[in-house]
Amino acid sequence: MSKMTKTIIKLTVRDVRFPTSLEQHGSDAMHTDPDYSVAYVVIETDQGMQGYGLTFTVGRGTEIVVCAVEALSALVVGKSLEEIVSDFRGFYRLLTSDGQMRWIGPEKGVIQLATAAVLNAVWDLWARSEGKPLWKLLVEMDPRKLISCIDFRYITDALTEEEALDILVKAQTGKQQRVDQMLKEGYPAYTTSCAWLGYSDQLLKQLCTDALNDGWTKFKVKVGADLKDDIRRCSLIRQMIGPHNTLMIDANQRWDVGEAITWVTRLAEYKPLWIEEPTSPDDILGHAAISKALAPLGIGVATGEQCHNRVMFKQFLQASALQFVQIDSCRLGSVNENLAVLLMAHKFKVPVCPHAGGVGLCELVQHLILFDYISVSASLDNRMCEFVDHLHQHFRSPVVIQNAHYMPPKDPGYSCEMLESSVQTHQYPQGQVWKKLQ
Amino acid sequence: MSKMTKTIIKLTVRDVRFPTSLEQHGSDAMHTDPDYSVAYVVIETDQGMQGYGLTFTVGRGTEIVVCAVEALSALVVGKSLEEIVSDFRGFYRLLTSDGQMRWIGPEKGVIQLATAAVLNAVWDLWARSEGKPLWKLLVEMDPRKLISCIDFRYITDALTEEEALDILVKAQTGKQQRVDQMLKEGYPAYTTSCAWLGYSDQLLKQLCTDALNDGWTKFKVKVGADLKDDIRRCSLIRQMIGPHNTLMIDANQRWDVGEAITWVTRLAEYKPLWIEEPTSPDDILGHAAISKALAPLGIGVATGEQCHNRVMFKQFLQASALQFVQIDSCRLGSVNENLAVLLMAHKFKVPVCPHAGGVGLCELVQHLILFDYISVSASLDNRMCEFVDHLHQHFRSPVVIQNAHYMPPKDPGYSCEMLESSVQTHQYPQGQVWKKLQ
Repeated sequence: MSKMTKTIIKLTVRDVRFPTSLEQHGSDAMHTDPDYSVAYVVIETDQGMQGYGLTFTVGRGTEIVVCAVEALSALVVGKSLEEIVSDFRGFYRLLTSDGQMRWIGPEKGVIQLATAAVLNAVWDLWARSEGKPLWKLLVEMDPRKLISCIDFRYITDALTEEEALDILVKAQTGKQQRVDQMLKEGYPAYTTSCAWLGYSDQLLKQLCTDALNDGWTKFKVKVGADLKDDIRRCSLIRQMIGPHNTLMIDANQRWDVGEAITWVTRLAEYKPLWIEEPTSPDDILGHAAISKALAPLGIGVATGEQCHNRVMFKQFLQASALQFVQIDSCRLGSVNENLAVLLMAHKFKVPVCPHAGGVGLCELVQHLILFDYISVSASLDNRMCEFVDHLHQHFRSPVVIQNAHYMPPKDPGYSCEMLESSVQTHQYPQGQVWKKLQ
Repeated sequence: MSKMTKTIIKLTVRDVRFPTSLEQHGSDAMHTDPDYSVAYVVIETDQGMQGYGLTFTVGRGTEIVVCAVEALSALVVGKSLEEIVSDFRGFYRLLTSDGQMRWIGPEKGVIQLATAAVLNAVWDLWARSEGKPLWKLLVEMDPRKLISCIDFRYITDALTEEEALDILVKAQTGKQQRVDQMLKEGYPAYTTSCAWLGYSDQLLKQLCTDALNDGWTKFKVKVGADLKDDIRRCSLIRQMIGPHNTLMIDANQRWDVGEAITWVTRLAEYKPLWIEEPTSPDDILGHAAISKALAPLGIGVATGEQCHNRVMFKQFLQASALQFVQIDSCRLGSVNENLAVLLMAHKFKVPVCPHAGGVGLCELVQHLILFDYISVSASLDNRMCEFVDHLHQHFRSPVVIQNAHYMPPKDPGYSCEMLESSVQTHQYPQGQVWKKLQ
C-alpha cells in the first residue's frame, strides 16, 4: 500500500433495481417475481480514490438495506484505509457489534447485508490501492495478516486461530502452480441459466442445447413448486444432458423436513448430485436429518446462500448437515467472514461451491473461490462455482467465462464497480427504466 | 367481533427513543450504552378504531426498523380486520414470505422485528374490537381458531397441527380455576432492576434492599465483562438475598463456548438457577454443549430474547440446548409465532420464562405468559416472568405488579398504547427530549 494515509471522506449508497420479474428470470419456488437489485456503495478517499461495494437483494426491501448502510456509514467515514486494515478484525467487530445496532441483528438479515455492502467496498478499495485483483491480494497476503482479518468470536470451539494459520501455512506448498493453472484453465463453473422455475419446457430445451454447445457440463434445475412438473423437467434435462453430465436440483426452501425427503426421493432416478436449500435456511438439524436420509441415494445437501453468518455455517459443519458449502459474497460479512467459513469448511473436509447469479454475485465470489483453491483447499474435487448469465453488462470488469470456467479477473479491485450509466438508469424509483414502467 | 367490517385505512410508524444510556440503565456486557427505543405503530380503521403495536430496539438502527415497517404497510393497509383474522396464518405468511422481501430475512433481524410491530398492532386491534385484554381473547378462543393463527411451515417435524390442537384441548380442564387464580394472585415475576452491569456496588445494595422489602424473591445479575467483578457482585447479591431466594445470571452473549463453561463454573458457588445467553444466540449446538457441561453443577441454560424465529426455537428444544425458554413479544413474529413456541416448549417439557424490560416488553409479554399458564402449561414450576421497573409511565395501561407478581391486565387490547405526549416528546430526533440533548 502507498505509504500515504488514505482517509475515507465520503460514502454514498444507492438503490439500483433491474426489472427481471418481467421475464421470470431468477424465479424459484419461494421468490416468484424477483427484481434483481443491489444496494450499491461507493466510498471515496481524500486522495480521490474510490472503492465500490454492493449487496444483492431482489427488489422490494432494498430501500431498507440502503437505510442500514446509511446507519453504518458513520462508523466508516473518517477512518483511514491504513487504520482499518491494520486491525481489520477490530473494524469488523466495530461494524457488527455496535452497542446499539447489534440488537437489530446481530450479524443477520438486513444489518449483515449492509455490513457486506460496506466491507465489500473497503476490500475493493484495499485491492485497488495495492493495484491487484482481490483474489491476488488475498493469495499473496501473509497468512498471519489474513488471519488478523477474521473475527473468531463464537467459532473457536470449531476452529482456533492456530488451526486456521496452520491450514494457510500448509497450503503455501504448490501455490504458484495453482495460480498458473487458474490463469490458464480458470475455475470450473456450473450453469443455472437454463432452468428457472418460470421458464417453459421449450425455452428450457433451447437454453440447454445452447449451453451444451458452449461446453457446459453441469446444470442446475429449480424444483419444489409441483412434483409432477419437477419430474417432467428433471427427466427432460437429464435426457438432454445425458448420463455423464452433472445435474443439481434446487428447492429454495420450499419444504418441511419430512416433505423434502419424500419429494427428493421421487427425483432420485434423475441422479442429482445435490438438493439445494431443501428447507428453512435456519434449520441445521433439519438439514442434518435430510442429509442422513438422502445419503443412501447418493444425493448430497447443499445450502448457504441464506446462511446468515459464520456461527450458522459452523453448526452446519459440526452437525454434518451439508455436503456442499455455498458461500455468498453478499450475505455474510464480506471477505472477512467468508475467510472464516472457507477455513472451517476445509477443516471439516466439505467442498465449497459458491452461490452466484443475481447482480454482481458472480463478479465478486469468483475472487473468493480462486483464493479457496489456491490458498486453502488445493483441490477441485466436487467443486464448482455457480454461474448465471445475467446483467454482467452493467459492470466495469464483468466476469470472463471460457469453456465453462471462470477466468481469473485481472483488473485491480473486487470487480464491484458498475457502469455509472447503468446505475443511474436503474436507480429506484427515479431512474428511466422505472419511470417508464410506472 | 362486531359484524361490521373494519378496514385498516392507515398505518403510521414513529421512531421513539428514551435516553437511558445517560444513567446506564439496561447496560450489559454487549450493550454498553442502550437508549431504549421502539418503532411505534398505529393502525386505524375506517370506523375510527385504533390498534397499537411496537417493537423494541436500543437506539441507533430504530430508523431502519421504521423503514421496514413502512415497506410492510402496503400489505396491511386496505385489508379488513375480519379478512385478516379469518385466515391469520395466511396473513402471517403474506408478511413473512413476500416474494421479494423475504430475501432480506427471511423471518429474522430487522424485517422480523418490523413484522412483530405490525402484527402486534393487528392483535391489539382484534382484542380491542372484542372488548377484551389480549390474554383473555386468547384464553377464550376456540382451540381450532388459535391453531389457525400459526404458520406451521418448517416446524412439523417437531410439532404437528394435530399435536398442537391436542395440547390446547387437554388444557381446557381446570382453565377457569387458573383464570381465577391469576386474577387473584397474579403471575410470578423476577427482577432485573437491581444489577445492571453499569451500576455501582452501592446502588446495587440499595436497590436490592428495596426489592427485598417490596417482596421480591428472584433476582437477576448481569455478568460477563470481568470475572473478578462478577465474583464480587454475585457474592454480594447472594449475601443480600440469602440462600433461599433465587439468583439468575445473564452474560448477554459475551463468551465463546469453552469460555462460557469455565467462567460459569467459577460462579457456581453462588448457586445461580440459570446462565442466560452464555454465547451467540444463533449457536444451538454451542448452547447444547454448555447445557451438558453445566447440568452437573445444577445450573440451567436460558436463552431466547434474540432467538429470531420458531425454527431456531424448535432446534434449541430438539437439541436440549436450553432448560428455560425466554420468548420475546417483539423479536418473534408477534402472537402468531409465539403461540408456536409456547406449544413446542410444552411438548418438549421445557418451562417458558419470558424476556421483558426495555420499553413495553413487560406490558406485552404478560399477556402471553398468562395464556401459557391458563391454556397450555397449567404449571408454575420453575416459571417466572422478567420484570424491569422502567418507562412504564409512558403507557396508557401500564403493568400492575403486586407482591412481585404480574396482575392480569383488564383494559381491552395488548397494552401497547403509549401516551401520545410521551411519543411526541421522545420522537427521534425531533422530540423535545432529544433537542435538549443536542
